[in-house]
Amino acid sequence: MEIENRLKEIGIELPSPVKPVANYVTTVQTGNLVFTSGHGPVNVSGDLQTGQLGADMTVEEGYQSARLVGLGLISTLKDALGDLDRIKRVVKVVGFVNSTPAFLDHPKVINGVSDLLVEVFGDKGRHARSAVGMVQLPGGIPVEVEVIVEVED
Amino acid sequence: MEIENRLKEIGIELPSPVKPVANYVTTVQTGNLVFTSGHGPVNVSGDLQTGQLGADMTVEEGYQSARLVGLGLISTLKDALGDLDRIKRVVKVVGFVNSTPAFLDHPKVINGVSDLLVEVFGDKGRHARSAVGMVQLPGGIPVEVEVIVEVED
Amino acid sequence: MEIENRLKEIGIELPSPVKPVANYVTTVQTGNLVFTSGHGPVNVSGDLQTGQLGADMTVEEGYQSARLVGLGLISTLKDALGDLDRIKRVVKVVGFVNSTPAFLDHPKVINGVSDLLVEVFGDKGRHARSAVGMVQLPGGIPVEVEVIVEVED
Repeated sequence: MEIENRLKEIGIELPSPVKPVANYVTTVQTGNLVFTSGHGPVNVSGDLQTGQLGADMTVEEGYQSARLVGLGLISTLKDALGDLDRIKRVVKVVGFVNSTPAFLDHPKVINGVSDLLVEVFGDKGRHARSAVGMVQLPGGIPVEVEVIVEVED
Repeated sequence: MEIENRLKEIGIELPSPVKPVANYVTTVQTGNLVFTSGHGPVNVSGDLQTGQLGADMTVEEGYQSARLVGLGLISTLKDALGDLDRIKRVVKVVGFVNSTPAFLDHPKVINGVSDLLVEVFGDKGRHARSAVGMVQLPGGIPVEVEVIVEVED
Repeated sequence: MEIENRLKEIGIELPSPVKPVANYVTTVQTGNLVFTSGHGPVNVSGDLQTGQLGADMTVEEGYQSARLVGLGLISTLKDALGDLDRIKRVVKVVGFVNSTPAFLDHPKVINGVSDLLVEVFGDKGRHARSAVGMVQLPGGIPVEVEVIVEVED
């Protein structure tokens, strides 16, 4: 329960894992890799945040939103794996940022996920990453993130 | 020929597999994973559909277009694997939707692929998924989808 | 040193590998797969190119920019693997093109990466690929590319 304890130490309470409403699932494991679905930011009341970087959301708000997405991803992984200690490495993060044509700071937004992953998983949380700008995202969410993690045999 | 028989049962005829016109290929297998290239919707006359969600295409038309992309992906996988029964699991789907800044229903569009995969492959067709909005796609296609599948040893 | 020799033969000098400035890394290896972060085009003076297809950059300029991204990716892989001959196959390329809503030639831009990979790695360089249009990219770069390669045991 090393990771669970670290979450408590740093005062992080995970949200409930999301449930897809269509013919897909939140994670699929193949060999030692777990692929997650794209996740959006679910706030404390269980609603999806909306907003667009460069329009009605600042970089700092986007960062916090990306951190919220990260909490949801960790919750999903806990639900799928039973024990977060089974995660050997966060392999890949793709961060899709809902942004105006003029917005250029996608990496600063996606740092909200990256910083959380390293805070929680330490060096095992360091991942390869892409951050890109989207014309729009499902339901108007500001950030969508998918991850691939490697788990113990 | 379980999957082939199911395709016949539900009245699905696969289109011819597409051929890339540049220095890439439609699939690469590494270990037990097969990665496909992004596919667009090829209609019965062999032409790529064009259109944009939120502009000249309804959600239902987008859904049908995504289903068409799915048929092309299954055709490509059959061509690569010889036998679709070799597919053990559809692992991941990324659905890129050509959309205006105001369009919000990307998931309803990409359901066209997800529903087809579950219709054809059953529970093995349930996948992790991301659906995102693109400012534009190659040649003006409305939907581009890439998949990762796990195959038997 | 087969690949190193080919680089010399065709007169290619690799740029210095980039260093991430946040909580992520340029590559993560899991099993036989190496996932890279998204890379942008770094020119000879070490600066990131900026531009947008359909606005201030022609298809040919975009192609050259994508080629530059490819050189950076090869440099990163060399840095991570020590020897480029360890690459058994380029598995997957995702090419994100910064484009206006009217731009349709994303594949012709991403060919700049695909052609380079086949030029350098031969048939081992042929990959599955997606090419898509982004409303904007980090810092205003015209092209961002991520790859997955399979390496020898």
